[in-house]
Amino acid sequence: MEYLRSFLPENRILVGANISPDYARDELGAVESAPDVLVRPQSAEEVSKILSYANERLLPVVTRGAGTGLVGGAVAVSGGFMLETTLMNRIVELDERNMAVTVEPGVLLMDLSKYVQDRGYMYPPDPGETSATIGGNISTNAGGMRAVKYGVTRDYVLSLTAVLPTGEIETFGSKVVKNSSGYSIKDLLIGSEGTLAVIVGATLRVIPLPSEIVSLLVPFPTFRAAVSTVPELIRSGTDPTAVEFLTREVISLAEDYLGKRFPRIEGDTALLLTYDGFSAQELRERMDKASELCIEKGAYDVFIVDTEERRAAVWTARGAFLEAIKSSTTQFDECDVVVPRSKVADFTECVNELSGRIGLRIPYFGHAGDGNLHVYFCRDGLEETLWEKKLQEGFDVLYTKAVELGGMVSGEHGIGFAKRDYLAQRLGPNQMELMRRIKKAFDPNGILNPQKVCT
Amino acid sequence: MEYLRSFLPENRILVGANISPDYARDELGAVESAPDVLVRPQSAEEVSKILSYANERLLPVVTRGAGTGLVGGAVAVSGGFMLETTLMNRIVELDERNMAVTVEPGVLLMDLSKYVQDRGYMYPPDPGETSATIGGNISTNAGGMRAVKYGVTRDYVLSLTAVLPTGEIETFGSKVVKNSSGYSIKDLLIGSEGTLAVIVGATLRVIPLPSEIVSLLVPFPTFRAAVSTVPELIRSGTDPTAVEFLTREVISLAEDYLGKRFPRIEGDTALLLTYDGFSAQELRERMDKASELCIEKGAYDVFIVDTEERRAAVWTARGAFLEAIKSSTTQFDECDVVVPRSKVADFTECVNELSGRIGLRIPYFGHAGDGNLHVYFCRDGLEETLWEKKLQEGFDVLYTKAVELGGMVSGEHGIGFAKRDYLAQRLGPNQMELMRRIKKAFDPNGILNPQKVCT
Repeated sequence: MEYLRSFLPENRILVGANISPDYARDELGAVESAPDVLVRPQSAEEVSKILSYANERLLPVVTRGAGTGLVGGAVAVSGGFMLETTLMNRIVELDERNMAVTVEPGVLLMDLSKYVQDRGYMYPPDPGETSATIGGNISTNAGGMRAVKYGVTRDYVLSLTAVLPTGEIETFGSKVVKNSSGYSIKDLLIGSEGTLAVIVGATLRVIPLPSEIVSLLVPFPTFRAAVSTVPELIRSGTDPTAVEFLTREVISLAEDYLGKRFPRIEGDTALLLTYDGFSAQELRERMDKASELCIEKGAYDVFIVDTEERRAAVWTARGAFLEAIKSSTTQFDECDVVVPRSKVADFTECVNELSGRIGLRIPYFGHAGDGNLHVYFCRDGLEETLWEKKLQEGFDVLYTKAVELGGMVSGEHGIGFAKRDYLAQRLGPNQMELMRRIKKAFDPNGILNPQKVCT
Repeated sequence: MEYLRSFLPENRILVGANISPDYARDELGAVESAPDVLVRPQSAEEVSKILSYANERLLPVVTRGAGTGLVGGAVAVSGGFMLETTLMNRIVELDERNMAVTVEPGVLLMDLSKYVQDRGYMYPPDPGETSATIGGNISTNAGGMRAVKYGVTRDYVLSLTAVLPTGEIETFGSKVVKNSSGYSIKDLLIGSEGTLAVIVGATLRVIPLPSEIVSLLVPFPTFRAAVSTVPELIRSGTDPTAVEFLTREVISLAEDYLGKRFPRIEGDTALLLTYDGFSAQELRERMDKASELCIEKGAYDVFIVDTEERRAAVWTARGAFLEAIKSSTTQFDECDVVVPRSKVADFTECVNELSGRIGLRIPYFGHAGDGNLHVYFCRDGLEETLWEKKLQEGFDVLYTKAVELGGMVSGEHGIGFAKRDYLAQRLGPNQMELMRRIKKAFDPNGILNPQKVCT
């Protein structure tokens, strides 16, 4: 404490009962553990001092952004220091000639998006949780809806500045858009969930802001009819920005949660397609082609989401899915699998079958365009031991199925604390051993976010 | 030898004088060293057997594709085994529903491109050297002209199957397009130039083949006028596929080499813009916007490269630049720097100034759209010691300048054997130490491609 006080003001160091219980959990709250000391650094140099101190004394250091994670990645399961980055929230520079924005890690995604949008640019990754920090987004390689057209966070990180456990501040990558200069340490840090280094800055690629954006709501009789259209849509060259699926069940939950009606549509499942571009006419051509294809594949109709009222109704509902499911039950846990785009219906059939068999409500929604599904086990009135037992069985069945279909255990939420066993099952001992050796190459004393990902 | 003969036919094991001298060098030929044994494996299992054998006996193993590299990456500078992959050249599967093609590493880029193109798809990366293998492309994270719109090899690798030094065959990644499941070892292998594992298979993302492709040839009075237009073009939302610059000097070399005239154009430098898409009209709108912008920025004119004759003249010349420079001199060496897009003219000014000062001809061409320049030192009639001295000085000046401008020492050719010192200068001791530790995590005995990249 004396050491911390030598370079940090009192109000940015919190200890014991002064630490809000919020810092002991993330958004899902499945794992709880408070840090011993919460520090709110404002600069890379402060982070450096804390890390080198902790490294010498073998004290755990967990980095946390806005705490919106769902897998316990930013929970201090071994106690120690928590570095909370939300005071490092400056947008340092927008370099318009190189289309690059440089930010501190605590900038919120919503603030970054608005900042660049106001200046005519788009930062394409758009995870549903826009109150997340960009540092957290990078640490989990966050995806979001627009991944179908634009890719994920990884595709927009030009460079990262990070502090190594020994306190050195290093910048990996630069503003260049092509690079073949040694191992891509930048790509290793992306998605490493704070276990290799602490990200203190990032330069991100932005693109020209499309002038036209339109969504289509396309109801289908069945889930399988809807999602089996998706590979065709992607292949058609109509280049959708986002392709979400919306089931009747989850739409109803959102209606209940919001107290608002969703546009009345037939059938069991709808696709929500978004198109963007710079020419209204060209956009119309692509949407016409997409609409025809959907009708051919059995869609009841294609509704253009163009009035303000309809747009609000559709997108408010879509944005409320997670909260709606959460508020519909007493407790829930989630599975963020990703499967090849062609296997989505095979996976959800397995979910439905599982739900019937173990008698657990398991709603899901997700990104049909990239095979990334968010599946929620709902406890409802279930007694605790039984809930734990069914949850365990459910996870086992679904992750096994994901692997069988050539999928991965996490599409965008990460592994954190909660999904380590499933990662190990998916990747096997050789790959886990490689990860542990990489971890050791960066953090030989194991101080960074212990008990996460591969340790 | 006895061990190799136990599972390989005689004609796929070559020793000593039976090894063609071609295998002692790459395309540039600046470094020469023959392997002791050349093996031509046909399967991952054969690679596995050779690696585990070499690993136990601490014998060097260099993997080589088509040998089109320019930095000595595939030269056996420490002798030992050379694994030549061109017999592993099967296209294993085209999964149209997931837009993924699975290949062996020895497939040539030109064969892959044609295969997917014939079926209505495009594999976007397009390095100039299409007789390179896809394994080599992945190992250097090859870029190419279309990187402006489509990105580089890294952006199209969904999964890699690789053999570890101990012989284990592991697949990193899968057909999924979103992934947040532990450290991205796949991204670490991409660009690692055969120093971490031997790539024996890859699943690559393809996209729908654009139906329309048009190029524009845009002459400008000066180099600076031409390249300073590029950031505006990128920012304009006209979404060019490729933006090349062509200097008068290099055009002349190509004319001499080919014995064919390039279309007559005014000025010192031309931009060669390519646009592609699915709607001819929309393409025309984007090209009109781009043309206006170029004229505003001082272009003499904008020529649509639309007749077969003109297309052949322009693209044959562009494709012959490297060979034309090579044949114009007695010996040459190259510098494949990448700088932020806005800094290209600052860099080439430094090249011109250097050329005048040390009296060396230094032609260059490259990718204006992504700041990646190929700069060639030409020996011409120079005496050897003086050539070596001037070359050394030239490299020092240019790499120092690239770093000063926020660039990197290689945009797409890699580090290999030749550029290690410059990489170390650019990245500093901490990052080099991290790379060496990563190397050790994969290859503790240091058998894979020794003396390359960071060792």
